[in-house]
Amino acid sequence: MAHPSSSVTGEFRLIRQLAERFSWSHPSVLRGIGDDAAVVRLSTRRPLLLTTDLLAEGIHFDLRTAAFEDIGYKAAVANLSDIAAMGGRPHAMLVALALPRTATSRQVERLYRGMMRICRPFMVALVGGDTSASRHGWFISMTMTGVASPHRILYRSGARPGNDLWVSGTLGDSAAGLQLLAGPTPSRLAPHHVRTLIARHHRPTPRIALGQLLASQKLATAAIDVSDGLSGDLAHVCEESGVGVEVVAATLPLSPALRAYAVSRRMDAARLALQGGEDYEILFTAPSSARGRLERLSRRQDRCPLTRIGTIKRKRFGLRLRQMDGKLVAIPRLSYEHFSERRDTNLTNRDLFQ
Amino acid sequence: MAHPSSSVTGEFRLIRQLAERFSWSHPSVLRGIGDDAAVVRLSTRRPLLLTTDLLAEGIHFDLRTAAFEDIGYKAAVANLSDIAAMGGRPHAMLVALALPRTATSRQVERLYRGMMRICRPFMVALVGGDTSASRHGWFISMTMTGVASPHRILYRSGARPGNDLWVSGTLGDSAAGLQLLAGPTPSRLAPHHVRTLIARHHRPTPRIALGQLLASQKLATAAIDVSDGLSGDLAHVCEESGVGVEVVAATLPLSPALRAYAVSRRMDAARLALQGGEDYEILFTAPSSARGRLERLSRRQDRCPLTRIGTIKRKRFGLRLRQMDGKLVAIPRLSYEHFSERRDTNLTNRDLFQ
Repeated sequence: MAHPSSSVTGEFRLIRQLAERFSWSHPSVLRGIGDDAAVVRLSTRRPLLLTTDLLAEGIHFDLRTAAFEDIGYKAAVANLSDIAAMGGRPHAMLVALALPRTATSRQVERLYRGMMRICRPFMVALVGGDTSASRHGWFISMTMTGVASPHRILYRSGARPGNDLWVSGTLGDSAAGLQLLAGPTPSRLAPHHVRTLIARHHRPTPRIALGQLLASQKLATAAIDVSDGLSGDLAHVCEESGVGVEVVAATLPLSPALRAYAVSRRMDAARLALQGGEDYEILFTAPSSARGRLERLSRRQDRCPLTRIGTIKRKRFGLRLRQMDGKLVAIPRLSYEHFSERRDTNLTNRDLFQ
Repeated sequence: MAHPSSSVTGEFRLIRQLAERFSWSHPSVLRGIGDDAAVVRLSTRRPLLLTTDLLAEGIHFDLRTAAFEDIGYKAAVANLSDIAAMGGRPHAMLVALALPRTATSRQVERLYRGMMRICRPFMVALVGGDTSASRHGWFISMTMTGVASPHRILYRSGARPGNDLWVSGTLGDSAAGLQLLAGPTPSRLAPHHVRTLIARHHRPTPRIALGQLLASQKLATAAIDVSDGLSGDLAHVCEESGVGVEVVAATLPLSPALRAYAVSRRMDAARLALQGGEDYEILFTAPSSARGRLERLSRRQDRCPLTRIGTIKRKRFGLRLRQMDGKLVAIPRLSYEHFSERRDTNLTNRDLFQ
């Protein structure tokens, strides 16, 4: 995690605006830049979802701490999670690789193996790609297609004042796992907690079934996957929906491992949950009338609990956090940096489009 | 252009085989890895085409000789040309960028401007992407979707013995343009020839209308776009179709600029035409019964002449060139390197999948 300077954020905002300017309107484009995936309509009833993620060595992953299987696995999850957050079914993928001269076919094989380990259960087919040399470092660009039902797509823009705010699973584990990989392990943290947090960082779970359920049963009004961190992704939903939000810190879902980690490091676990990225959970809004059904769903899907963490407000309310002490404060919006602070670059790797 | 060592070629072949191994069969995948684009069937009558290309700084382009507009333009052409070679209509694209710290929003704007200059005429919408920091150099990964008519898709695998071999436009210009950018201009070469060749390198023409015509009128039995160079791409067609070929050197379409360049450098123009990549012309096979219609088409499409350059043979014939002196020799298969010989990497940038 890092605190990018305002000039960096400004530069990225500018680039995002640029892309939007070139993204001209087209009758078959139901949703272009600005959601987890693009939605296009071909000559079919079922809209096509399209998403792409680019992972760069030294920015998104570190070969000293991540195995190639893990890198492939996580690259696939980033895309699967985007499809999940739209309520879609993932379908096919293309993989473009730029390989440094030190790359071996054995490493590439491990990368593919990691990808397919998480793609196969969802019947996602590897249909193509491209491979190039790279003068410095590995670059992995993956594009995934998915299908969705019309009128059953979860956009970021559907949140309405009075809606409940929900999130799947637990938050902050991946960020804690990243910190553990980057620095020394606190001596007072039990080894099984260390393993849990690092596993959550390397092999997050895409919430495909949940996304499809929320969409098909029309339970959610808006959804996004938590890749930048709760505070950042929540800001996307509020911006796209034109609403505010109150998040209740006491309700944030924290794993036992994260709680133990926070104690061992004397950190605020809620802060990790708010700002830690790459959890790949689904953050969604739902009318209060859906509360009973979502609670039943949460009990049934015992490996993916759903937690109500706040309420959507009018826009002028802003984005606020009800702290443990009862005080209501503005949610600090800090972008998550995937691998580590990039002291050698003045650009962050925040997703611009998605 | 470079002559990769056999170990390099071997490593790339291994990686390609790897990708194919992980590309498991799926009923909705009509064609996976191994053609210009993948063909998948959703719940629609019209198959979806998917293609991706990755361009790396120092490998595919050199910022000292190419403007950002040119880089964006050519990245788009690489994808448009893949869709054209399948007989499809390009539809939407996603652009993933990895930016070095020296990147400015002005440069990114120019890149998009170049892309959209060639995409807009074909109504291709920019629908999404991703942006990341890069520790070294620019990486541009573009994915394009297209639509095709079922039973009217041009695969590499349809060539049959007795078919004519055709190619659009002229060959070798782009490679000559690249050589002009990399080295000193021959003093005896007229400036307008220099401009023509460099323009053909920076701004090649995707043959979208031709591809659609060949597919819709069922004129071609197989097609591929010339990105690796005639000899390499022809080898792909022969391999996928299980056939051999005789190419007649005297019939290779050479532009006046290329002929002048070859004279000034005392090079064999036919060799440039055979081995020079990135022409983005369409190489296709057609039954001899289509000859009259293709000749009429060639005269009508006066800016894109079609030339008959050989005949498809049985597989055991091999891949042979009828030289100017009448001798029949094996076609040397050399891969084209896009930007320059990569002395600092042991991997070439030949496309592995497409």
